[in-house]
Amino acid sequence: MKKYYFDHVATNPLHPEVLEAMMPYLKEEFGNPLSVYEYGMTAKNAIEQAREKVAFLVNAKPAEIIFTASGAEANNFALRGIALARQNEGKHVIVSRMEHHSVLNSARFLEKSGFAVTYLSVDKAGLLDPEAVKKAITKETTVISVTHASSEVGTIEPIKEIVKVAKERNITVHTDAVATTGNIPVDVKDLGVDLLSMAAHQFYGPKGAAALYVKQGTRIVPLIYGGIQESGRRAGTENVPAVVGMGKAAELARAEMQERIAYLRPLRDRIIDTMAGVERVYLTGDRANRLPAHASFCVEYIEGEAMLLLLAAKGIFSASGSACSSKALKASPVLLSMGISSSLAQGSIVFSLGMGNTPQDVDYLVAEFPAVIKRLREISPYAKGWGDREEGGEACTVKE
Amino acid sequence: MKKYYFDHVATNPLHPEVLEAMMPYLKEEFGNPLSVYEYGMTAKNAIEQAREKVAFLVNAKPAEIIFTASGAEANNFALRGIALARQNEGKHVIVSRMEHHSVLNSARFLEKSGFAVTYLSVDKAGLLDPEAVKKAITKETTVISVTHASSEVGTIEPIKEIVKVAKERNITVHTDAVATTGNIPVDVKDLGVDLLSMAAHQFYGPKGAAALYVKQGTRIVPLIYGGIQESGRRAGTENVPAVVGMGKAAELARAEMQERIAYLRPLRDRIIDTMAGVERVYLTGDRANRLPAHASFCVEYIEGEAMLLLLAAKGIFSASGSACSSKALKASPVLLSMGISSSLAQGSIVFSLGMGNTPQDVDYLVAEFPAVIKRLREISPYAKGWGDREEGGEACTVKE
Repeated sequence: MKKYYFDHVATNPLHPEVLEAMMPYLKEEFGNPLSVYEYGMTAKNAIEQAREKVAFLVNAKPAEIIFTASGAEANNFALRGIALARQNEGKHVIVSRMEHHSVLNSARFLEKSGFAVTYLSVDKAGLLDPEAVKKAITKETTVISVTHASSEVGTIEPIKEIVKVAKERNITVHTDAVATTGNIPVDVKDLGVDLLSMAAHQFYGPKGAAALYVKQGTRIVPLIYGGIQESGRRAGTENVPAVVGMGKAAELARAEMQERIAYLRPLRDRIIDTMAGVERVYLTGDRANRLPAHASFCVEYIEGEAMLLLLAAKGIFSASGSACSSKALKASPVLLSMGISSSLAQGSIVFSLGMGNTPQDVDYLVAEFPAVIKRLREISPYAKGWGDREEGGEACTVKE
Repeated sequence: MKKYYFDHVATNPLHPEVLEAMMPYLKEEFGNPLSVYEYGMTAKNAIEQAREKVAFLVNAKPAEIIFTASGAEANNFALRGIALARQNEGKHVIVSRMEHHSVLNSARFLEKSGFAVTYLSVDKAGLLDPEAVKKAITKETTVISVTHASSEVGTIEPIKEIVKVAKERNITVHTDAVATTGNIPVDVKDLGVDLLSMAAHQFYGPKGAAALYVKQGTRIVPLIYGGIQESGRRAGTENVPAVVGMGKAAELARAEMQERIAYLRPLRDRIIDTMAGVERVYLTGDRANRLPAHASFCVEYIEGEAMLLLLAAKGIFSASGSACSSKALKASPVLLSMGISSSLAQGSIVFSLGMGNTPQDVDYLVAEFPAVIKRLREISPYAKGWGDREEGGEACTVKE
């Protein structure tokens, strides 16, 4: 059976040119970048070239890029590293409820370590109001962490405005840009953030390579101590092939970004527009400020998992909420924070497109998905008395 | 020019079968192990099979293996994770001065966080005396971390005896087995440790894959928070190809270990025996309790870096101290902790063998290395008045 992969927010296949770039470092160029001889120098140069490419992708300086092994590591490093570095100035941290678990659970760890954390709710479209950030700031606040975009609902947050508010009070701002970097233009100078997380496998690079942008002059406490790798800020023998792959993926993303967006957005729009015609299916997230390849919905009276399984039986692979919580079997905290009821949140489904998807793939999806919904509703005990329930209508209608 | 790689403690090339095992996961099997559909299940199964192989290598249960991205991460996780988990029982940690930077600097971080740390010195052969551990234990001690073997001097530490001392007092024991796992038999049950770190690239597996053994029932605070990967104990999208490679490398290491040791040890012995005949060259580390492929020396009146460069010019690649400190240009703390003078410690050099080395490679090394020493001494201002200095003689003579 043909496979239709619509879960690019979970992970992406490698771009063939990325794999090609990695291969020498999986074979003859196996050196440790810290070694002083030939093999080591080749590996070291490869890492530094990758750093330049990643820096160029986000308009940073190479020295501002610290490689990590995952977006989760970058997020932990950022939030906890700044909170600890500035703890003498204050012990209050602000995050949104839209954050990835790696930010939220880092915040909870800080709470256990004696920090105060404010978790900010968002509006029905998943947007965080900069005014709410302003109100939450205290004299003790040192760090604010807000995601650049949610991989669950696709909403792109107003980071520039949040930075403006934070900078009036000398607060360090981190953004988790794992879902955006390589997929839409990300410019650290334009955003004004102090720290920004990214992950290579979100833009056709390898798993095992990610990075944290740390603005020059920002003090940060390491998460992983050890040797002098990454200027002493992140220890561990570098995963040379993966870092090289991240560099190549960054280079390709930078070169092809507009072309990719121009290809993917209309496909995404077709999914959203088609689903707008299906009864009691609601777009989640903001329609305008949205990842270009991201379509997410709540389908009333149906459980996300049932949809996933029936779609998978037709060769269509999608997600219900974020990959990292997909097996938790709980209503997504992100959806709940947007004011969606827990019963409706159960019916969450996300289709995320990638360059491997053809217009014919989308034809297939928009033909099959409404049929899956119909079939599940026929067997759903909850779907009988539709007229009685209205909760979803307001919460996440498709907005144009 | 032919290359002679004698720095296998820095890193190893991939075993061709390891790369072969990884390739499908770098291509078509790119799924995220958390996804519920086919791609995800394939990736998840691959991870679990790798976990079984790694567990088998060290005689653990699969559920006791937590994958990490580096040995450094595993060491940070172990030491800090246990210290935090047990902080209500006490805030005292014991480590040896032989530890890798990732343990030593984690210990320093704990000191800054209000823990007391005892750093134990070793004897001239680099051996830690279990009695010294016993004396250092206080009512507050919760964790002891001692390396299984030092990659700088090759000495294998008496972990079983240290565990015996610790267990009388209900203290958690961690060993950094990065240099030993996959290279000599490592059995967590026989050693009796509660935690053990290992890294795939030390036994012909990939960079970017490592693991921490955590004995069933051991409470540990995560280092990286986020999703539910690794049973919620280590977040971040799994580096599936690297983990698969680690599994294959573990399987091969288990199957071929005795054969590898039988091949490597005589080659190593030839290097040591030849160098014993060169004036004022001293074996560092213990001769008997020693990594089978490891030969390390201090060469009087010469700086390690000069040796490295001159050897590299002859195609011979070796190290002076650990890779992680190789560019620090300071006398190795490990050598100093063994009572070696700082001037002699400057003349440190390590040859570590691997399965790619032939007997002819060793012929070349033992012919060229004494010539390099001779040449450097001819131009060394320190070598003139040999008779005046005796410091090295006692500190690290070759012991039979």
